[in-house]
Amino acid sequence: MASNTNAVIGQSGGPTAVINQSLVGVIEGLYKQPSVGKILGAKHGVRGIIDGEFIELNGLDAGLLEQVAQTPSSALGSTRDKPDEEYCKKLFESFRRHSVGYFYYIGGNDSADTARIVSEMAITSGYPLRVYHVPKTIDNDLRTTDHCPGYGSAGRFVALGVMGDDLDNRSLKGVKIDVIMGRDAGWLTAASVLARHDENDGPHLIYVPEVDFNEDKFIGDVDRIYTKLGRCVIAASEGIRYKVGDKNSLVTEKAMRGGEVDAHGNKQLSGSGALGDYLSELVKRQLGSIIQQRSGGKLRVRADTFGYLQRSFPTIVSQADAHEARQCGRLAVQYSMSAPNDLVSGSVAIKRISDAPYQVDYFPTALTNVARQTKHLDPSWVKNGCDIADDYLRYAKGLVGPLPIPGKLY
Amino acid sequence: MASNTNAVIGQSGGPTAVINQSLVGVIEGLYKQPSVGKILGAKHGVRGIIDGEFIELNGLDAGLLEQVAQTPSSALGSTRDKPDEEYCKKLFESFRRHSVGYFYYIGGNDSADTARIVSEMAITSGYPLRVYHVPKTIDNDLRTTDHCPGYGSAGRFVALGVMGDDLDNRSLKGVKIDVIMGRDAGWLTAASVLARHDENDGPHLIYVPEVDFNEDKFIGDVDRIYTKLGRCVIAASEGIRYKVGDKNSLVTEKAMRGGEVDAHGNKQLSGSGALGDYLSELVKRQLGSIIQQRSGGKLRVRADTFGYLQRSFPTIVSQADAHEARQCGRLAVQYSMSAPNDLVSGSVAIKRISDAPYQVDYFPTALTNVARQTKHLDPSWVKNGCDIADDYLRYAKGLVGPLPIPGKLY
Repeated sequence: MASNTNAVIGQSGGPTAVINQSLVGVIEGLYKQPSVGKILGAKHGVRGIIDGEFIELNGLDAGLLEQVAQTPSSALGSTRDKPDEEYCKKLFESFRRHSVGYFYYIGGNDSADTARIVSEMAITSGYPLRVYHVPKTIDNDLRTTDHCPGYGSAGRFVALGVMGDDLDNRSLKGVKIDVIMGRDAGWLTAASVLARHDENDGPHLIYVPEVDFNEDKFIGDVDRIYTKLGRCVIAASEGIRYKVGDKNSLVTEKAMRGGEVDAHGNKQLSGSGALGDYLSELVKRQLGSIIQQRSGGKLRVRADTFGYLQRSFPTIVSQADAHEARQCGRLAVQYSMSAPNDLVSGSVAIKRISDAPYQVDYFPTALTNVARQTKHLDPSWVKNGCDIADDYLRYAKGLVGPLPIPGKLY
Repeated sequence: MASNTNAVIGQSGGPTAVINQSLVGVIEGLYKQPSVGKILGAKHGVRGIIDGEFIELNGLDAGLLEQVAQTPSSALGSTRDKPDEEYCKKLFESFRRHSVGYFYYIGGNDSADTARIVSEMAITSGYPLRVYHVPKTIDNDLRTTDHCPGYGSAGRFVALGVMGDDLDNRSLKGVKIDVIMGRDAGWLTAASVLARHDENDGPHLIYVPEVDFNEDKFIGDVDRIYTKLGRCVIAASEGIRYKVGDKNSLVTEKAMRGGEVDAHGNKQLSGSGALGDYLSELVKRQLGSIIQQRSGGKLRVRADTFGYLQRSFPTIVSQADAHEARQCGRLAVQYSMSAPNDLVSGSVAIKRISDAPYQVDYFPTALTNVARQTKHLDPSWVKNGCDIADDYLRYAKGLVGPLPIPGKLY
């Protein structure tokens, strides 16, 4: 390609604490490519491309780039737009107008699908475009890759948050419910298990979308733990769901009676305390009077929804995650220039070399291997419908990094 | 006092990230006092004293103590019990039985009042007891002291949380409401203003209990910011209240239609997402269709309740706060042995020497100067009912410590 070929970078979907590491990785990668002319940052993802809203990223100061890399959330702005055919036509009009030959899209499942569609349309229409998806999602639900940049840092936030909350509950007792992000997969909720250090540490119960949620079983679980310990800390995924006949229905939907739907057809689960409050009321109603009769005291039940703090809290970053996010950005550029198996359009994937010491490698994969389908928790990693197995710990420890060990006097 | 005089330490009320620094400070202080025999940690505050549940704290390893100091939440367990006369009698029975001559109580407003009552009963009944209150509260609402240990670290969490959330909102737009702890005073919510660095950074609107909440003004404020910036980040205290005639009524109460009351007559505000969801619905209902007409797009409104994460998140600690909490514990012991003005029962208070460089000193004060009444934000620090003045920044920067500066590309 000629040196007047320009590159576009975009960020899409929910932000993470390290998505800007990937952005800076792509920029650094492009700085080494003499065949690339302008480096255009699309403001708010595909939306910025069709609106012609670009930020020129050539020749930025290394100090600023490092500061951006360490800043959570999408520095270019993000979008939930999901291009249809009409939208894609406009994308290509913009690509033509700005002589774009490379398109790097940092995002999750939906963004990988956008990249796939754009890449396929480029081939069909004969437009010379190389498209690379850079994986990013706190949900950790992309296929092919061992794990997703963004997950380790969000998992670190969840593990620390539940650890502190368990110490809080140990001190004031009662039942505490923590609602954790994850629409379709329980990866992030599973990270709460890393908070445990000693026997009897919470979380005592963990509920993920991979297992049907049953209110009677839930209440039985809480009663069992509370009877044993006089307290109970619960980590519940925002995506937990009932089995109704052959179908599933979200507990949150019952709690919210309806709720919003985004452009991808996904229900709004975050940014509301409805699920936590619903579970809280359920425990009070079903166990309140029984426990009061048994112990004489009023049952204290509280719920917190960790919300957006999980994906954008400054300073809570896994070092491994930050490093890998940066590498994925750099490699997207490298692969787009010359990849193994000639995958000059594709997605960057991570391969696990060893759990301890934690070690990974990277490889390019076809966009069709990443887009659309959700990668769920291994079913064997969910114990009794309310706990996470040790195999998950082996998988997750390296991603999240070393955690503090609570000091206790009893 | 003879060397068979023992000391009791208790922790009370909501935990903080540095309450164990104070506990370890008291223990270290007592290790230097040959006149003190046993050091008894009361499990769950006054509750442990009447139940005779003590942990012996003599001769603990310095490494363990340091680990405990760095662990959030109350290592001895906490309580919400508020002693009445009958309860106090039982306390003195326990003090007699265990030859207790010193009582150190680490807590907030209610705990200072408990210390005051116990101290007064000791004098009335002629029982030789020295009682020292060690201040602790994320609410920062104790009188006499310049600020309270626990506030700086919680303020740091809030500032970082809102900073990240503002970057998140900058990336995906819409209206975001963050509900922050603080039943009667807006100190912790005010700390959100520290998240701002550049013009147009959030939080754009800040609501505290010190100013009457008015729904029409609130909606007008949100509309004004949204019209200007296309987005709006709001920090609202859980204790915001309407003026109804001569009385106040909590917005949360309207949102929860009732709600729990604790032993001190305080309404349960935390551990529920009701207020955030109520404000969120209010914005959607009042502004949703207007903004949709104006911009063509659906108004995105989300709410997060920061909840218990604010007071017990491991690793998010202000260094100044940790140091001062430790010092307050050490000085409580020192003052109880020999204090200026002979205040051998009292509370430890902090005096501000200078804002920059941040410097403080300590002094003993009478329990009646601390207990009961709430210290509110200076009214002149609240601007237009929806912002915090620069005078607060001067007050708070040293308490919270240096914050990261977000790297931006536009």
